[in-house]
Amino acid sequence: MTRDDINLPGPLAEITAAFERYETALTTNDVAVLDELFFVDPRTIRYGIGENLYGHDEIAAFRASRPSGGLDRTLERTAITSFGTDFATAMTLFRRTPGKIGRQSQTWAKIDGDWRIVAAHVSLIPEE
Amino acid sequence: MTRDDINLPGPLAEITAAFERYETALTTNDVAVLDELFFVDPRTIRYGIGENLYGHDEIAAFRASRPSGGLDRTLERTAITSFGTDFATAMTLFRRTPGKIGRQSQTWAKIDGDWRIVAAHVSLIPEE
Repeated sequence: MTRDDINLPGPLAEITAAFERYETALTTNDVAVLDELFFVDPRTIRYGIGENLYGHDEIAAFRASRPSGGLDRTLERTAITSFGTDFATAMTLFRRTPGKIGRQSQTWAKIDGDWRIVAAHVSLIPEE
Repeated sequence: MTRDDINLPGPLAEITAAFERYETALTTNDVAVLDELFFVDPRTIRYGIGENLYGHDEIAAFRASRPSGGLDRTLERTAITSFGTDFATAMTLFRRTPGKIGRQSQTWAKIDGDWRIVAAHVSLIPEE
Protein backbone atom coordinates (compact mmCIF):
# COMPACT_ATOMS: atom_id res chain seq x y z
CA MET A 1 0.00 0.00 0.00
CA THR A 2 0.98 3.64 -0.33
CA ARG A 3 0.56 6.66 1.91
CA ASP A 4 -2.39 7.68 -0.31
CA ASP A 5 -4.29 4.56 0.80
CA ILE A 6 -4.57 5.88 4.35
CA ASN A 7 -8.01 7.08 5.44
CA LEU A 8 -9.89 6.43 2.23
CA PRO A 9 -13.44 7.65 2.92
CA GLY A 10 -15.21 4.29 2.48
CA PRO A 11 -13.05 2.16 4.76
CA LEU A 12 -12.76 4.97 7.30
CA ALA A 13 -16.56 5.25 7.53
CA GLU A 14 -16.91 1.48 7.91
CA ILE A 15 -14.36 1.18 10.68
CA THR A 16 -15.68 4.23 12.50
CA ALA A 17 -19.13 2.62 12.60
CA ALA A 18 -17.62 -0.63 13.88
CA PHE A 19 -15.68 1.23 16.56
CA GLU A 20 -18.83 3.00 17.74
CA ARG A 21 -20.72 -0.28 17.83
CA TYR A 22 -17.99 -1.72 20.01
CA GLU A 23 -18.03 1.26 22.38
CA THR A 24 -21.79 0.97 22.86
CA ALA A 25 -21.48 -2.76 23.50
CA LEU A 26 -18.69 -2.17 26.00
CA THR A 27 -20.51 0.42 28.07
CA THR A 28 -23.76 -1.59 28.08
CA ASN A 29 -21.92 -4.90 28.67
CA ASP A 30 -23.42 -6.46 25.54
CA VAL A 31 -21.23 -9.54 25.74
CA ALA A 32 -22.65 -11.10 22.56
CA VAL A 33 -21.56 -8.12 20.46
CA LEU A 34 -18.19 -7.89 22.20
CA ASP A 35 -17.54 -11.56 21.46
CA GLU A 36 -18.69 -11.08 17.86
CA LEU A 37 -16.40 -8.11 17.22
CA PHE A 38 -13.26 -9.87 18.41
CA PHE A 39 -11.98 -12.14 15.63
CA VAL A 40 -12.85 -15.73 16.51
CA ASP A 41 -9.37 -17.19 16.26
CA PRO A 42 -6.70 -18.51 18.64
CA ARG A 43 -4.34 -15.80 17.35
CA THR A 44 -6.50 -12.93 18.65
CA ILE A 45 -4.85 -11.25 21.64
CA ARG A 46 -6.15 -8.78 24.22
CA TYR A 47 -3.98 -7.21 26.89
CA GLY A 48 -6.47 -5.84 29.42
CA ILE A 49 -6.11 -3.55 32.40
CA GLY A 50 -5.07 -6.45 34.61
CA GLU A 51 -4.91 -9.56 32.41
CA ASN A 52 -3.18 -10.94 29.31
CA LEU A 53 -5.56 -12.95 27.15
CA TYR A 54 -4.35 -15.13 24.28
CA GLY A 55 -7.01 -16.43 21.92
CA HIS A 56 -10.71 -15.72 21.53
CA ASP A 57 -11.60 -18.40 24.09
CA GLU A 58 -9.72 -16.61 26.86
CA ILE A 59 -11.20 -13.26 25.84
CA ALA A 60 -14.75 -14.63 25.85
CA ALA A 61 -14.24 -16.29 29.24
CA PHE A 62 -13.06 -12.96 30.65
CA ARG A 63 -16.10 -11.15 29.25
CA ALA A 64 -18.46 -13.70 30.70
CA SER A 65 -17.08 -13.18 34.22
CA ARG A 66 -16.68 -9.40 34.06
CA PRO A 67 -18.72 -7.22 36.45
CA SER A 68 -21.48 -5.53 34.46
CA GLY A 69 -21.69 -2.27 36.43
CA GLY A 70 -19.72 0.97 36.37
CA LEU A 71 -18.68 0.61 32.74
CA ASP A 72 -19.58 4.09 31.55
CA ARG A 73 -16.69 6.22 30.38
CA THR A 74 -15.86 9.24 28.29
CA LEU A 75 -13.46 9.11 25.36
CA GLU A 76 -10.80 11.68 24.55
CA ARG A 77 -8.42 12.17 21.63
CA THR A 78 -9.92 9.25 19.70
CA ALA A 79 -7.95 8.62 16.51
CA ILE A 80 -9.18 6.09 13.96
CA THR A 81 -6.99 5.45 10.93
CA SER A 82 -7.65 3.06 8.05
CA PHE A 83 -4.89 1.57 5.91
CA GLY A 84 -6.08 0.38 2.52
CA THR A 85 -9.48 -1.29 2.51
CA ASP A 86 -9.02 -4.03 5.12
CA PHE A 87 -7.00 -2.73 8.02
CA ALA A 88 -7.37 -0.03 10.66
CA THR A 89 -6.20 1.16 14.06
CA ALA A 90 -8.40 2.77 16.69
CA MET A 91 -6.61 4.56 19.52
CA THR A 92 -8.37 6.44 22.28
CA LEU A 93 -7.91 7.76 25.76
CA PHE A 94 -10.75 7.31 28.23
CA ARG A 95 -11.75 8.43 31.71
CA ARG A 96 -13.62 6.25 34.15
CA THR A 97 -11.42 5.90 37.25
CA PRO A 98 -10.74 9.17 39.12
CA GLY A 99 -7.07 10.15 38.99
CA LYS A 100 -6.34 7.73 36.13
CA ILE A 101 -6.28 8.05 32.39
CA GLY A 102 -7.13 5.00 30.31
CA ARG A 103 -5.62 4.12 26.99
CA GLN A 104 -7.27 1.70 24.57
CA SER A 105 -5.69 0.57 21.32
CA GLN A 106 -7.32 -1.76 18.84
CA THR A 107 -6.15 -3.25 15.57
CA TRP A 108 -9.00 -4.10 13.21
CA ALA A 109 -8.96 -6.25 10.06
CA LYS A 110 -11.73 -6.86 7.55
CA ILE A 111 -11.68 -10.63 7.23
CA ASP A 112 -14.09 -12.48 5.00
CA GLY A 113 -16.17 -9.31 4.76
CA ASP A 114 -16.43 -8.42 8.44
CA TRP A 115 -14.44 -5.88 10.47
CA ARG A 116 -12.98 -7.66 13.49
CA ILE A 117 -10.57 -6.74 16.30
CA VAL A 118 -7.48 -8.89 15.92
CA ALA A 119 -5.44 -7.29 18.71
CA ALA A 120 -6.23 -4.95 21.60
CA HIS A 121 -4.46 -3.39 24.56
CA VAL A 122 -6.01 -1.46 27.44
CA SER A 123 -4.08 0.15 30.30
CA LEU A 124 -4.41 2.75 33.03
CA ILE A 125 -1.79 5.27 34.07
CA PRO A 126 -1.87 8.12 36.60
CA GLU A 127 -3.47 11.29 35.28
CA GLU A 128 -0.93 13.74 33.91
CA MET B 1 -8.78 -10.36 2.86
CA THR B 2 -9.67 -13.87 3.96
CA ARG B 3 -8.63 -16.01 6.88
CA ASP B 4 -6.25 -17.82 4.50
CA ASP B 5 -4.27 -14.58 4.05
CA ILE B 6 -3.11 -14.68 7.67
CA ASN B 7 0.52 -15.61 8.28
CA LEU B 8 1.57 -16.11 4.68
CA PRO B 9 5.23 -17.19 4.90
CA GLY B 10 6.72 -14.24 2.97
CA PRO B 11 5.07 -11.38 4.89
CA LEU B 12 5.49 -13.19 8.20
CA ALA B 13 9.25 -13.54 7.62
CA GLU B 14 9.53 -9.87 6.66
CA ILE B 15 7.68 -8.56 9.68
CA THR B 16 9.51 -10.90 12.04
CA ALA B 17 12.81 -9.49 10.81
CA ALA B 18 11.50 -5.94 11.27
CA PHE B 19 10.31 -6.74 14.79
CA GLU B 20 13.71 -8.16 15.73
CA ARG B 21 15.46 -5.11 14.29
CA TYR B 22 13.24 -2.91 16.44
CA GLU B 23 13.96 -4.96 19.58
CA THR B 24 17.71 -4.68 19.07
CA ALA B 25 17.40 -0.92 18.50
CA LEU B 26 15.29 -0.57 21.63
CA THR B 27 17.63 -2.40 23.96
CA THR B 28 20.72 -0.63 22.56
CA ASN B 29 18.95 2.76 22.46
CA ASP B 30 19.62 3.15 18.73
CA VAL B 31 17.41 6.21 18.40
CA ALA B 32 18.00 6.59 14.65
CA VAL B 33 16.58 3.13 13.95
CA LEU B 34 13.70 3.60 16.41
CA ASP B 35 12.75 6.85 14.67
CA GLU B 36 13.05 5.18 11.27
CA LEU B 37 10.82 2.25 12.17
CA PHE B 38 7.96 4.43 13.41
CA PHE B 39 5.99 5.71 10.43
CA VAL B 40 6.88 9.37 9.86
CA ASP B 41 3.39 10.79 9.96
CA PRO B 42 1.29 12.93 12.32
CA ARG B 43 -1.20 10.02 12.58
CA THR B 44 1.31 7.66 14.19
CA ILE B 45 0.48 7.12 17.87
CA ARG B 46 2.44 5.56 20.72
CA TYR B 47 1.00 5.05 24.20
CA GLY B 48 4.06 4.47 26.38
CA ILE B 49 4.51 3.31 29.95
CA GLY B 50 3.84 6.81 31.26
CA GLU B 51 3.09 9.03 28.26
CA ASN B 52 0.65 9.39 25.38
CA LEU B 53 2.37 10.50 22.19
CA TYR B 54 0.45 11.66 19.14
CA GLY B 55 2.44 12.01 15.93
CA HIS B 56 5.97 11.07 14.95
CA ASP B 57 7.33 14.41 16.21
CA GLU B 58 6.20 13.70 19.78
CA ILE B 59 7.53 10.14 19.58
CA ALA B 60 10.94 11.30 18.32
CA ALA B 61 11.15 14.00 21.01
CA PHE B 62 10.46 11.35 23.66
CA ARG B 63 13.15 9.05 22.27
CA ALA B 64 15.69 11.86 22.23
CA SER B 65 15.16 12.55 25.93
CA ARG B 66 14.89 8.96 27.12
CA PRO B 67 17.50 7.61 29.56
CA SER B 68 19.78 5.26 27.67
CA GLY B 69 20.59 2.81 30.46
CA GLY B 70 18.79 -0.18 31.92
CA LEU B 71 16.94 -0.99 28.72
CA ASP B 72 17.68 -4.70 28.56
CA ARG B 73 14.68 -6.98 28.85
CA THR B 74 13.54 -10.49 28.10
CA LEU B 75 10.50 -11.22 25.92
CA GLU B 76 7.83 -13.82 26.64
CA ARG B 77 4.87 -15.14 24.67
CA THR B 78 5.76 -13.06 21.61
CA ALA B 79 3.07 -13.43 18.93
CA ILE B 80 3.60 -11.93 15.49
CA THR B 81 0.73 -12.24 13.00
CA SER B 82 0.61 -10.95 9.43
CA PHE B 83 -2.62 -10.12 7.61
CA GLY B 84 -2.29 -10.17 3.84
CA THR B 85 0.95 -8.72 2.50
CA ASP B 86 1.01 -5.27 4.11
CA PHE B 87 -0.22 -5.50 7.72
CA ALA B 88 0.84 -7.18 10.90
CA THR B 89 0.52 -7.13 14.66
CA ALA B 90 3.34 -7.87 17.09
CA MET B 91 2.33 -8.57 20.68
CA THR B 92 4.75 -9.50 23.41
CA LEU B 93 5.15 -9.61 27.14
CA PHE B 94 8.47 -8.48 28.59
CA ARG B 95 10.29 -8.45 31.93
CA ARG B 96 12.59 -5.66 33.03
CA THR B 97 11.15 -4.23 36.26
CA PRO B 98 11.05 -6.67 39.21
CA GLY B 99 7.48 -7.50 40.23
CA LYS B 100 6.03 -6.14 37.00
CA ILE B 101 5.11 -7.65 33.68
CA GLY B 102 5.34 -5.49 30.59
CA ARG B 103 3.05 -5.68 27.59
CA GLN B 104 4.01 -4.24 24.21
CA SER B 105 1.68 -4.19 21.23
CA GLN B 106 2.58 -2.85 17.82
CA THR B 107 0.65 -2.48 14.58
CA TRP B 108 2.84 -2.55 11.50
CA ALA B 109 1.99 -1.54 7.92
CA LYS B 110 4.09 -1.89 4.78
CA ILE B 111 3.82 1.57 3.28
CA ASP B 112 5.59 2.50 0.07
CA GLY B 113 7.66 -0.67 0.41
CA ASP B 114 8.81 -0.31 4.02
CA TRP B 115 7.44 -1.96 7.16
CA ARG B 116 6.66 0.74 9.69
CA ILE B 117 4.99 0.88 13.12
CA VAL B 118 1.80 2.92 12.78
CA ALA B 119 0.52 2.41 16.33
CA ALA B 120 2.04 1.10 19.56
CA HIS B 121 1.08 0.67 23.19
CA VAL B 122 3.33 -0.28 26.11
CA SER B 123 2.18 -0.78 29.70
CA LEU B 124 3.25 -2.36 32.98
CA ILE B 125 1.04 -4.30 35.35
CA PRO B 126 1.81 -6.16 38.59
CA GLU B 127 3.18 -9.63 38.07
CA GLU B 128 0.50 -12.30 38.18
